[in-house]
Amino acid sequence: MTPETLPDFDPALDLVLQRDLAAPREVLYECWTTPEHLIHWFVPKPHRVTACHLDVRVGGACNTTFDVEGTVMENKGVYLEVVPNERLVFTDAYSEGWKPAAEPFMTAILTFEDLGAGRTRYTAVARHRNAETARQHAEMGFHDGWGTVASQLEAYAQGLGR
Amino acid sequence: MTPETLPDFDPALDLVLQRDLAAPREVLYECWTTPEHLIHWFVPKPHRVTACHLDVRVGGACNTTFDVEGTVMENKGVYLEVVPNERLVFTDAYSEGWKPAAEPFMTAILTFEDLGAGRTRYTAVARHRNAETARQHAEMGFHDGWGTVASQLEAYAQGLGR
Repeated sequence: MTPETLPDFDPALDLVLQRDLAAPREVLYECWTTPEHLIHWFVPKPHRVTACHLDVRVGGACNTTFDVEGTVMENKGVYLEVVPNERLVFTDAYSEGWKPAAEPFMTAILTFEDLGAGRTRYTAVARHRNAETARQHAEMGFHDGWGTVASQLEAYAQGLGR
Repeated sequence: MTPETLPDFDPALDLVLQRDLAAPREVLYECWTTPEHLIHWFVPKPHRVTACHLDVRVGGACNTTFDVEGTVMENKGVYLEVVPNERLVFTDAYSEGWKPAAEPFMTAILTFEDLGAGRTRYTAVARHRNAETARQHAEMGFHDGWGTVASQLEAYAQGLGR
């Protein structure tokens, strides 16, 4: 699977990052779904995750708080789909209790494909509700940001020594 | 449970219809989740459902087409939560494949509570992303419309003779 052959890929609405990471998918999935792990790699350094509440089930909270150069950013969301070790879908279009957000930003679809030998094809699709939001996300630095975070995730996962 | 005590009820954003129906919740749930049943009661008569595709799983399609006095209305959505016989959550905020809608209208949370003796407390909450959309839905006749549909559902379910 390449970004161009992703199911339903829409270049006007979707941004994609795909990377082969030198860590098993079970470990990457654990890093994505465990607050104690997530805080160490989830935002490009030196920015920091200062709070994280994850209730990893459909409709459960996926909330994080960042400190970006002294500015606190609260992100509330929910999981839409949870397939352990394989796939996670989450969005800010809802907060817990299926409360719709007034202006949703994106829906993220993550897939973890086992490449064997402890390697994983990691694909993150950020799907947007209109072209303007997708463009805005691209200009905010989606590719650099999510790329940096993928490298941080890989290094952190390797450091767990599994 | 009354509308006022619904979890997270927000009078500015949520519209609620609650009715005690003289039919078992298993039958009502089946009517909601089976196209051959749904087409008979889902819109106030004489309007008609002319097509219906339901894939009753999280992320599966919940698509219906209405004929309202010759005007065809296509409604695409997905299920967000599926608890057989108890609870259904669906929305037009996504179409199948987690494609976000540009301008979502509502998220519906249905609960079916067993009252014993073949009766069910049926609660439909329509949750909106802003007060303007909720007001618009109320003015479109949410309470009358969903009330009529609840009566049609009850009569249809009773006619199944279960």
